[in-house]
Amino acid sequence: MAAVQELKLLGAVSGVSPYVIRVQMALAVKGLAHEYLPEDLAHKSQLLLDSNPVHKQVPVLIHNGKPVCDSPIIVQYIDEALAGNGSSILPADPYDRAVARFWAAFIDNNLFPSCIGILEARTEEKKAAKLEEALAALQLMEGALVGCSKGKPFFGGDAVGYLDIALGCYLCWFKGVGDMAGATLLDAARTPELAAWAARFGAAETAGSLVPGVDKVEAYVNTVLYPKWNAAAAAANN
Amino acid sequence: MAAVQELKLLGAVSGVSPYVIRVQMALAVKGLAHEYLPEDLAHKSQLLLDSNPVHKQVPVLIHNGKPVCDSPIIVQYIDEALAGNGSSILPADPYDRAVARFWAAFIDNNLFPSCIGILEARTEEKKAAKLEEALAALQLMEGALVGCSKGKPFFGGDAVGYLDIALGCYLCWFKGVGDMAGATLLDAARTPELAAWAARFGAAETAGSLVPGVDKVEAYVNTVLYPKWNAAAAAANN
Repeated sequence: MAAVQELKLLGAVSGVSPYVIRVQMALAVKGLAHEYLPEDLAHKSQLLLDSNPVHKQVPVLIHNGKPVCDSPIIVQYIDEALAGNGSSILPADPYDRAVARFWAAFIDNNLFPSCIGILEARTEEKKAAKLEEALAALQLMEGALVGCSKGKPFFGGDAVGYLDIALGCYLCWFKGVGDMAGATLLDAARTPELAAWAARFGAAETAGSLVPGVDKVEAYVNTVLYPKWNAAAAAANN
Repeated sequence: MAAVQELKLLGAVSGVSPYVIRVQMALAVKGLAHEYLPEDLAHKSQLLLDSNPVHKQVPVLIHNGKPVCDSPIIVQYIDEALAGNGSSILPADPYDRAVARFWAAFIDNNLFPSCIGILEARTEEKKAAKLEEALAALQLMEGALVGCSKGKPFFGGDAVGYLDIALGCYLCWFKGVGDMAGATLLDAARTPELAAWAARFGAAETAGSLVPGVDKVEAYVNTVLYPKWNAAAAAANN
């Protein structure tokens, strides 16, 4: 069983990519040692270009020389292929697994784009609409938490699981976007279960310690995202 | 093992939703009988609204009263949870599974949006750019086919598998979009392996017979998509 596993994770120097953080959390939950290689995404390494020639994006997990790309796929691969000393990540029951995958996709495709949209919005009207969207999505996650956790501390039950990681990798972004937009996204009054879950997740020995500080998110938004959005808006006006 | 399985599939009356077709193909590969309930998406049934309250979209598979949504998730659920008399859908090896999931996501998020973009484009310049994108994506799928099939007839090897279904559900769209745009997307000169695969897939006893006619795609584009895009363009100009 215990063959040698050489694991390299291509990450980002910014330290705030939720997708990289997600993979780091999965490796932590499974108790898997790995070499972390942070990429400067303005000057991508040949290893990154060779490992993910289609998207040229991080994260990439390289297992014994073979690359795996896309964070939800990497997390499932870690759970299915790698023998660690930690707990399983995906639920054992196929229906619970389908439900976890559904909400994980909802978080990536709906919840987070709405959050980022609050900052990207160029009018107050659009900003308010995106905030409302994000709050509605978090309200749905409140219901998902109640359904999935079945009274236990995490989406995954007694231990941090797939959906905990899928959502938890965005915790610094919820806080950072909220601070920058003058709003509270994870509000104990509006979504009490989710706010309590976030506190538990942040305190969890495995994954919680990997949530970066809000200052890093703000620095990334100011130095990377705002200039990118401004350039795109200028180009669209020409 | 062989508990009674009540399976209902909520589909669409148009008959051209690639996501519904994908689930029908998965059910066919596994040899699973089911009740097919086509939805008029202009007047969604209460069953659809109750089964997929988040996205209110088809397909939804209802297994013994429990709904599963999102076609890639449904196909994995079918493979993991349902005992049929057909073959497995996902590859047995975890690395092969990760590769299949990667390309399936690429097809949904890159290849098909480029194809649809050819029709949605409102300038010749944009149309040409989208066509080039689509052809480049198909070129990548040619390489993926060579890598995944390892000389066997299908992405999944000797039998139709996950990636065959993920791509095969779009076959009528490649043909329909190509016909409407005056281009050949699946071109035997440019992507000979993929063109030969498409012919094999179309002839396959299980999934191939579920590829609808191009006339249905054209009718859907003309009666649903063009009016929708025209309305959106008119709104954007106001």
